[in-house]
Amino acid sequence: VTNVQSVYDELVAKYREYTVLRTIAELLHWDMQTIMPPKGATRRSDQLALVSGMAHSHLTAPRIGELLADLEAHEQDLGSEQRANLREMTRDYRRATKIPQKLVEELSRHQSLCHEHWVHAREVGDFGLFAPYLEKMVRLTAEEAEFLGYQDTPLDALIDEFEPGATAAMFTKLFEEVKAANVPLLRRIMASPVKADGRFLAMDYPAAMQKHFGEQIMQAIGFDTEGGRLDISVHPFCSGTYGDVRITTRYNEHAPQQAIFGIIHETGHALYEQGFLPQNLGTPLAEAMSYGIHESQSRMWENFVGRSKPFWTFFLPQLKACFPNELAQVSLDQFVLAVNHVEPSLVRVEADEMTYDLHIILRFEIERDLFAGNLSVSDLPAAWNKKMEEYLGITPPNDGKEGVMQDVHWSGGSFGYFPSYSLGNMAAGQFWYAMRAKMPDMDKQMEKGNFADLLHWLRENVHQHGRRFIRNDLMQKATGKPLATTDYVRYLNEKYSALYQL
Amino acid sequence: VTNVQSVYDELVAKYREYTVLRTIAELLHWDMQTIMPPKGATRRSDQLALVSGMAHSHLTAPRIGELLADLEAHEQDLGSEQRANLREMTRDYRRATKIPQKLVEELSRHQSLCHEHWVHAREVGDFGLFAPYLEKMVRLTAEEAEFLGYQDTPLDALIDEFEPGATAAMFTKLFEEVKAANVPLLRRIMASPVKADGRFLAMDYPAAMQKHFGEQIMQAIGFDTEGGRLDISVHPFCSGTYGDVRITTRYNEHAPQQAIFGIIHETGHALYEQGFLPQNLGTPLAEAMSYGIHESQSRMWENFVGRSKPFWTFFLPQLKACFPNELAQVSLDQFVLAVNHVEPSLVRVEADEMTYDLHIILRFEIERDLFAGNLSVSDLPAAWNKKMEEYLGITPPNDGKEGVMQDVHWSGGSFGYFPSYSLGNMAAGQFWYAMRAKMPDMDKQMEKGNFADLLHWLRENVHQHGRRFIRNDLMQKATGKPLATTDYVRYLNEKYSALYQL
Repeated sequence: VTNVQSVYDELVAKYREYTVLRTIAELLHWDMQTIMPPKGATRRSDQLALVSGMAHSHLTAPRIGELLADLEAHEQDLGSEQRANLREMTRDYRRATKIPQKLVEELSRHQSLCHEHWVHAREVGDFGLFAPYLEKMVRLTAEEAEFLGYQDTPLDALIDEFEPGATAAMFTKLFEEVKAANVPLLRRIMASPVKADGRFLAMDYPAAMQKHFGEQIMQAIGFDTEGGRLDISVHPFCSGTYGDVRITTRYNEHAPQQAIFGIIHETGHALYEQGFLPQNLGTPLAEAMSYGIHESQSRMWENFVGRSKPFWTFFLPQLKACFPNELAQVSLDQFVLAVNHVEPSLVRVEADEMTYDLHIILRFEIERDLFAGNLSVSDLPAAWNKKMEEYLGITPPNDGKEGVMQDVHWSGGSFGYFPSYSLGNMAAGQFWYAMRAKMPDMDKQMEKGNFADLLHWLRENVHQHGRRFIRNDLMQKATGKPLATTDYVRYLNEKYSALYQL
Repeated sequence: VTNVQSVYDELVAKYREYTVLRTIAELLHWDMQTIMPPKGATRRSDQLALVSGMAHSHLTAPRIGELLADLEAHEQDLGSEQRANLREMTRDYRRATKIPQKLVEELSRHQSLCHEHWVHAREVGDFGLFAPYLEKMVRLTAEEAEFLGYQDTPLDALIDEFEPGATAAMFTKLFEEVKAANVPLLRRIMASPVKADGRFLAMDYPAAMQKHFGEQIMQAIGFDTEGGRLDISVHPFCSGTYGDVRITTRYNEHAPQQAIFGIIHETGHALYEQGFLPQNLGTPLAEAMSYGIHESQSRMWENFVGRSKPFWTFFLPQLKACFPNELAQVSLDQFVLAVNHVEPSLVRVEADEMTYDLHIILRFEIERDLFAGNLSVSDLPAAWNKKMEEYLGITPPNDGKEGVMQDVHWSGGSFGYFPSYSLGNMAAGQFWYAMRAKMPDMDKQMEKGNFADLLHWLRENVHQHGRRFIRNDLMQKATGKPLATTDYVRYLNEKYSALYQL
C-alpha cells in the first residue's frame, strides 16, 4: 500500500505540473485578449505555442502512462477520491495520446487556413469559398474521431471531449423533447398581446457606471474579489481558476443589459471555479465536470436568477440609483419584461433565452447528419435555412454573418461543442427545482439580495466535486435523478406563461 | 560552412526557446506586481518556479554545450554578429552551468530565510537579528564566486553577472575619482545661498491627471504606445522587451515629481528595450549590454534630459495646463531648481541626483571590504554610519529603514549589483557630451519638445547593438573613448554650478 501511495503521489505531482503549464497558457491568453499591446502579438504566439507544446508533452510523457497502468492494477488500494482522480487522469492521458502527432500537426495547419478562408467567405457571404476547406476539416476531424474511438458515429468521439460519455443519440433524444416543447411555446409567446417595451434601454448608460453596477452584482452573488477580477475584452470570457479567476465583458453605452447579463453569466462560471476545494488544486477534482455543467452555472445565474423578478426587486432600485434619469419612470414589471423580451433572431450569440436552444439544436442536427454521412457540406446552406424557418420562423438573408457561416467553431474543427450549451440549460433547470425544494423561501431571499444559501447549495452539490462524479452520478446525487429535460421545460413554461400571460 | 550554419541555427533556435521562457516568467512577474488578485499568489509562485526551472534546464542542456563547443572550433566561418551571439551565449551557458545544483538550491533556501529575517530585523532596527543570516549569505555567495571563477576577489565574479568583465578594482578607481569631485561639490552646494523652494509640490495633484501628463511625456520622448503600457505598482519597474514593454509607477498626490521622474526613468529603460532590431529578437543581440548600460538610458532621460531647463521650457506650460491652480505662480527657474533640490539624505531610493552616487559608493566599498575579508559582518553598522558621515555629513538614527539594513539586495544575496547604478551615470555623462558634439542645437530642440534626434542617436549608438559589443568597445564606438568619469564629473559641475550659482 505504501508503494501504491507513492506511485499515486508521483502521478499527482506530474499532473500538477501539467495543470500549472495550462494555467500559464490561460493567463497568456487572458492578457492577450484584454491588455496586451498590439505589437506583443508575435511573441505571444511563440509563448503560447511553447507552453501548449510543453503541457502536451507533460501529459503524454511515457512515465505518466506507466504510473497510470501501475495504479490501475492496484485500484482497490486507493480511496474513492483517488480513484476518481485516477479515472479522470487516465481519460485525459488517453485522449491526448491516441491521436498521432502527424494528424495533430495537419489539423493545426488546416485550422489556420480554414479560419482564414472562413473570415473572408463570411465577410462576403459566399459559402462556396469556404466549402472546400470545411470539407477537409470535416474529413480530418472524422479521422481524429477514428483514433479516439466511438461506438456509433464519429461525432460521439468529438462530443466526448466536451461532455464525457455523452453521445449524438443521447442529444437527439433530449433535443426532440426540447423542440417538442419550445417550438409551440415560442409560437404562443409570439401570438401573445403582451409586448415588451425596452426603448429605455437605448438611452445613455456610461460604461464606468455600468461597471460599477456590475461589480455590485458580482459581490452580492458571491464573487470573491480577492480571488478574481473584472476586465474588458471584445469577446467576453471567464479565465483562470481557484484563487485567480478573471472575467471580462464589453460595454455598449446604449444597451446596458448586454454587460449586466454578460457579467452575471461570467460570474456564474467564476463561482464554479472559485468553488473547488483547495486541497484538490492541480488535480481533476478541482476542474469543471464538463463544458455543459460549466454552462449550467453561468446560465442559471444569468437567466434563472438574473432575469427573474425577485432578483430585480432587489437590484432595480440600485440600478436606478446609478442611472436615475434613464430609469426613473420604469416599473419593475416593465423592466423584467424588457430583459426577457422574446423574438426569433438570426444570430445565435444575440438570441434570447427562449430561442437559444433552437439555435443549438439546429447546429447539432446538422453536425450529426454531416458526420453520419446524411448531409454533404455543399448542402449546408439549404439545410440551415430550412431549419431556421422550421424552428424559428425566419429565413437568413445571407450565408454570412446572419446565416450558416456566423459561428467560428466549424472553421477551427470544433464539432460536438454546441450541445453543451443546451445541456447547461437542462442541468440548470434540474438543479433549480432541486434547490427550490430545499429552500422554499428562495424568491424571498433573492428579493432581499441574499444569495448565500443559493450559492451554498451549488457549492455543496456541484462546485466542490469538480470531476469527482460522472455526469449522471452528479445529477443523481444533486437532484435525485439522471439528466432529463422535464425540469427545464417546466421552467420555461412557468416563466414565460407568467410573463406573457399565456 | 553549410554545416556550421546549421549548427548555428540550431543553437539560435534553442536559445530562442530559452528567451521565450524568460519572457513568460517576466510577464508572470509583471502581472503579480500590478494586477494579480491577492489570492493568486500561491499558484503564481508555482508557475514562476516551474517556468524558471524550465528556462534554466533549457539554457544548461548538454546539447547547448555541444553546439557551443562545435561552433567555437569553427568561429572563423561565422559573421561578426554571429560571433558576438556565440560569445554571449557561451557566457550565459558557462555562468549557468558552473554552479552545482546543490549550491543553487542551498542559496535559494537561504534567500527565503535571510529575506524573512531581514524584514523583521529592519522593522525593529536590530542588526544583530539579521547578522547571522547575512554572514551565511556572504559565505554562500563567496562559494558561488569560487565556482564562477575570478582573478582578484570573489566580488569580481559577482559584479560580472551585472557588468560583464567589470571588477572591484575598476570600480575602486572610478569611484575614487567620483568621490574626489562630488564630496567637495556637495559641500559647495550646501553652502550656497541659493535655496530651492518646492512647497508648491506638496499641493493637490490627482493621480489620474498625473498619469495623463506622464503619458504625454512618454509619447513625446518616443515611447511606442503600440508596443507597451503604463501601469501602477508599489515598486516601479520596466518589464518585457521589444513589442511589449511595460513600465510602472506609483502616484503620490502630494509629490507629483515622484511619478513624473519615475515615468521618465522607466521610459528610458523602455526605449532601450524597444530599440533592439527585430531580426535579432530572441538572441543576445536583442538584449541589454549590461545593467549599467540599461541604467545609463534611464538616468540620462530622467536626470540629464528630464530635469533640465530646456525640457521644462517645453513641458512646464503643459504641466500648468494640467494643474492650473497649483502651478500658476511657479516660474520656470523656480520649478527647475525645485526638481533639482540637493540635500543629503539617509535613504538611497529617495536620494537626489547629486548625492546618489555617494550612497552607491558607500555600499560598494563595504561589499568590497567584506569579500576581501577586511570587514566582518558584525562591523557593518559602524562602517556604514562612518561612511555616511564622511560622504554625506549625516548619521543614521537607526540600523533599520534609515540605516545599514535599508536595502533588500543583501538579504537576497545580490552583491556586486549597486555599482551598476553609478556606472550608468558615468556612461550617461559620456554619451551626453558625445551626442551634444554631434547636435549642437540639442537644447533648442528640447525646448521645442523635439526629442527625435536625441533618441535617434541613442538608437544608432547604443540600443540597436544589444550585447554585440563589450562595454569598452561600445563606449569607444559611441564616444571615441573607453568608460571614464570625466564627462560625468563635468556634467555635474556645470549643471549644479549654474543652478546654485557656485
